[in-house]
Amino acid sequence: MKKKDTAPQDTIISTTPFPSSKKIYVPGAIHPQVKVAMREIELSDTVDSITGKRTVNQPVTVYDTSGPYTDPSKEINVHNGIEPIREQWVLDRGDVEELDSFSSEYCNERLNDSSLDHLRFNHLRKPKRAKKGKNVSQMYYAKQGIITPEMEYVAIRENQKLQEVKRLSKQHPGQDFGASIPEVITPEFVREEVARGRAVIPSNINHPESEPMILGRNFLVKINANIGNSATTSSIEEEVEKAVWACRWGADNIMDLSTGKNIHETREWIIRNSPVPIGTVPIYQALEKVNGKAEDLTWEIFKDTLIEQAEQGVDYFTIHAGVRLAYVPMTAKRITGIVSRGGSIMAKWCLAHHKESFLYTHFEEICEIMKAYDVAFSLGDGLRPGCIADANDEAQFAELETLGELTKIAWKHDVQTFIEGPGHVPMHMIKANMDKQLEACGEAPFYTLGPLTTDIAPGYDHITSGIGAAMIGWYGTAMLCYVTPKEHLGLPNKDDVRTGVITYKLAAHAADLAKGHPGAQHRDDALSKARFEFRWEDQFNLSLDPELAREYHDETLPAEGAKIAHFCSMCGPKFCSMKISQEVRDYAAKKEIDDRKALETGMQEKAEEFKEKGSEVYL
Amino acid sequence: MKKKDTAPQDTIISTTPFPSSKKIYVPGAIHPQVKVAMREIELSDTVDSITGKRTVNQPVTVYDTSGPYTDPSKEINVHNGIEPIREQWVLDRGDVEELDSFSSEYCNERLNDSSLDHLRFNHLRKPKRAKKGKNVSQMYYAKQGIITPEMEYVAIRENQKLQEVKRLSKQHPGQDFGASIPEVITPEFVREEVARGRAVIPSNINHPESEPMILGRNFLVKINANIGNSATTSSIEEEVEKAVWACRWGADNIMDLSTGKNIHETREWIIRNSPVPIGTVPIYQALEKVNGKAEDLTWEIFKDTLIEQAEQGVDYFTIHAGVRLAYVPMTAKRITGIVSRGGSIMAKWCLAHHKESFLYTHFEEICEIMKAYDVAFSLGDGLRPGCIADANDEAQFAELETLGELTKIAWKHDVQTFIEGPGHVPMHMIKANMDKQLEACGEAPFYTLGPLTTDIAPGYDHITSGIGAAMIGWYGTAMLCYVTPKEHLGLPNKDDVRTGVITYKLAAHAADLAKGHPGAQHRDDALSKARFEFRWEDQFNLSLDPELAREYHDETLPAEGAKIAHFCSMCGPKFCSMKISQEVRDYAAKKEIDDRKALETGMQEKAEEFKEKGSEVYL
Repeated sequence: MKKKDTAPQDTIISTTPFPSSKKIYVPGAIHPQVKVAMREIELSDTVDSITGKRTVNQPVTVYDTSGPYTDPSKEINVHNGIEPIREQWVLDRGDVEELDSFSSEYCNERLNDSSLDHLRFNHLRKPKRAKKGKNVSQMYYAKQGIITPEMEYVAIRENQKLQEVKRLSKQHPGQDFGASIPEVITPEFVREEVARGRAVIPSNINHPESEPMILGRNFLVKINANIGNSATTSSIEEEVEKAVWACRWGADNIMDLSTGKNIHETREWIIRNSPVPIGTVPIYQALEKVNGKAEDLTWEIFKDTLIEQAEQGVDYFTIHAGVRLAYVPMTAKRITGIVSRGGSIMAKWCLAHHKESFLYTHFEEICEIMKAYDVAFSLGDGLRPGCIADANDEAQFAELETLGELTKIAWKHDVQTFIEGPGHVPMHMIKANMDKQLEACGEAPFYTLGPLTTDIAPGYDHITSGIGAAMIGWYGTAMLCYVTPKEHLGLPNKDDVRTGVITYKLAAHAADLAKGHPGAQHRDDALSKARFEFRWEDQFNLSLDPELAREYHDETLPAEGAKIAHFCSMCGPKFCSMKISQEVRDYAAKKEIDDRKALETGMQEKAEEFKEKGSEVYL
Repeated sequence: MKKKDTAPQDTIISTTPFPSSKKIYVPGAIHPQVKVAMREIELSDTVDSITGKRTVNQPVTVYDTSGPYTDPSKEINVHNGIEPIREQWVLDRGDVEELDSFSSEYCNERLNDSSLDHLRFNHLRKPKRAKKGKNVSQMYYAKQGIITPEMEYVAIRENQKLQEVKRLSKQHPGQDFGASIPEVITPEFVREEVARGRAVIPSNINHPESEPMILGRNFLVKINANIGNSATTSSIEEEVEKAVWACRWGADNIMDLSTGKNIHETREWIIRNSPVPIGTVPIYQALEKVNGKAEDLTWEIFKDTLIEQAEQGVDYFTIHAGVRLAYVPMTAKRITGIVSRGGSIMAKWCLAHHKESFLYTHFEEICEIMKAYDVAFSLGDGLRPGCIADANDEAQFAELETLGELTKIAWKHDVQTFIEGPGHVPMHMIKANMDKQLEACGEAPFYTLGPLTTDIAPGYDHITSGIGAAMIGWYGTAMLCYVTPKEHLGLPNKDDVRTGVITYKLAAHAADLAKGHPGAQHRDDALSKARFEFRWEDQFNLSLDPELAREYHDETLPAEGAKIAHFCSMCGPKFCSMKISQEVRDYAAKKEIDDRKALETGMQEKAEEFKEKGSEVYL
């Protein structure tokens, strides 16, 4: 089952643009070098069913995470990696130095190991690091009042060119539970949110290929896709393919959770080809370095791993520093104990040494490393519940309090920080998680896994968790970590990644709608209008997964003609409510009378007239 | 694409029991002839990882909608239909008469048409009807203080043999928004709930094959699966197969929404082979009878259709009597107008005639028919929103008020009644639907389609709607009408039915958990315990879809040995948090000391000892 690892082939990468879509680049005003990628979906005209008059439907611009892969003008070569769009921005700030060599011992060991030559990424840039005494985090700049190109990029990106739509929007007012979402996102608003820690722009200076994005409760809800090999499956090629594939379908971030062979090299390939920020759990690799014996882990090995990964360009680290010694016994009576891999590793270390973990005791040193590269903290919830019964227990909330303390320390160092959350939680106990997190962690962005709202549906856990994810997103969570259908059962393949990503995109969007995020309803309205007008192609193209929508439609009515038919396979022509609705509407319009008036006066007369004309409204 | 219709083959029907499951029958106490079918899932032993001691895990009983098809002792022959378990109960009440022939003109026309012989179900029973002046509805009996066998059946069924578990249950207290769910459901409680209209037991006297089930906010949340052909697709055989298949996976009710050819015969085959109640929308067939011209519909044609279907055994009728003339213009400015097929048909009729619909004006006559067979009302939401923009608008809520008025009329006739709800609604506007329905309709059970929480994911609308369904189920909805992945795109095939049913089962269960339904957490706990103990087979067997869970597991680790392995393909052995958790737990247990004490005292000593012994906890 396990293949020998090799460098990936160019042919693996999907580079087709989405149907009827074009890539556009919106330039910055403060920083003209900023070119924000978006996808514009072109629509066909509306044809009036009575007069035949055509009305143009404006293209719909949507948030685009797919990077250069959907831009036919870009040449993609997986061996070179993608364009480092942020490199000059970083250099222009004048606060970084290029190092002659990598600082991590382990990294140099790997580079000097000729047995790895065949699977190495060969165009390594020199690593960058903050000059001595400098802090290169976006939070630091924000606190200094500086609007970076990254901040302007995300401001433009968040608006999706919908300023006009937002102004005219008739969408439902939302319920945002105390968020403060402005109608239009300005670069200054982004700066303020980053400065106060309420938002994070993951942006390691060594990952210049990444298109800036922002996490925060006052921004669009984002999603993360986990990929990564394990000791029993997968190859570098598969993982790179999954990464690009995940971005294509809408992943805003990717975590490489590899725990198998060649973790270092796998990560290099992923980062060099990733247009979205990459997160990792460094303790996984550290554990590999001590052959899987948790108790042999040391601060030195861990520190070297942090530096190794920071110089590769990892944008955020999950650090389970909240797993304190005293909390471990709180998990003994749980049904599923500790289900976080990182959490269980640290728990084992703590018990073996009967000490607080080195992640907790060395936290300020970790901050020093983070700020030298602008790696963000994703403070891990090592004690998250792994089943409904264990939800919201003492262990979970004790750790959350500690994460709140650590957040304040990270902020003291101007290190960007967000907080991981559960897990498995029944619906009625979800909001307590959000409320406690906001309070304990000073509104630092929340980043949750699901939560899964029942344990009884393995094989469908993208859905059990999609329910919880939509809800917690609505309550204020900034990023939702996807769950695939394979959760609890196996490692996701490419199809599972797509299903997981789309499920979480729709959950995140449902959350945006419920929060009343300005402009969020625009795409729903455009799609529903297309649906009502039987513009089938537009309906497909506006959907999150145009290919699947088309495929499902074609399964029952494959003929091209069916895509301009004013009915579908569900009802057939006579039972089509949309068709009848249009007739009702046309009827009113054609008579050029007020709808209500028509009904209130002269009913009998109108009825006769209608029948005389054959009772058909398309005349 | 369209096949010629024929009678179905016996071989189409899936009759395999679920793995490690046996069918059990729990007898009634008041009515010993009642035998309530349940599924008992057998589990393997827990083996203590230190002592090797085996502990027996009690079998888990689960709600079983699959009927005789999963009982190997029953002979299944699709041409005979399944056993009419309720027939004698109905006869014993002494208030029905067997008719010599069917009362509906149309039915007799079909029976006399020899061109239909090849696709006819040939073992028709004589139709039953209430004797003159009698009312045979469960609501009528309930109001008379009579506990029917149907009521005792559902009481036993709802408890799932969990009385003991409920008593000892340590599950999370729920948030039930004012429901009144008792710890144990008694037949008397069922009677009270039916009498006050807060619950419905759909049970047409002409569908004795149906195993009684109950809808109400104080009972387990139920789901409905829609099947049915259309003018462009499907056959009788496919529809019968889908019906049995839907029951297998957990459908509590089925609606036959056929609008194509041979609706009468298709329905006959489905009812005779269905162990769950069947609902229809009679206006669909009535429309077929007038060749699809809504304005040609008459009360007489509709009435004949009601009687035709009532004598076949349809358990509930969707009747769109709330679509009043004055409400139609309220839909003119909507993005998607009227999306209910029945609603749009009636709206067209109202406009054409400039009159109130005959469903509204003849409502009391409809009640007379309903109570002669115990057909329940599913009062249709003909003006439900078809997109996010149209949610909770004037038209929708005006109709809901009318449905409330009609409920009171139906109750005056002791006709069982439940109310249909939306549709497309963003998350934050869902609760208003439930609250208004409870108020307007006097707590009559609510039965909703989704709602879909965004419009932008065609192909994934089982999920966009599963989110809304779980939420509204939590708020108090009694039954959730499933949505399949094909919604808006095509007619569901067998796979889509399975996906839709399981998605809605998990949503309904998530709702039960959130409401704190007594005993609901038992299956979650059993599955999670199996998961933690690496009892893979038990994990699969306890899940809603054991086949898929196993299939996904085997995709990455197919060897049989992997199913007893103490790790899985996700993490491999070194990274398995569950394995490490068990070590942590064993460690504490083995030392025979209090967990906390172990940590607070003599830490260094313990650490040394642990390391000396090789730092492995399995010694």
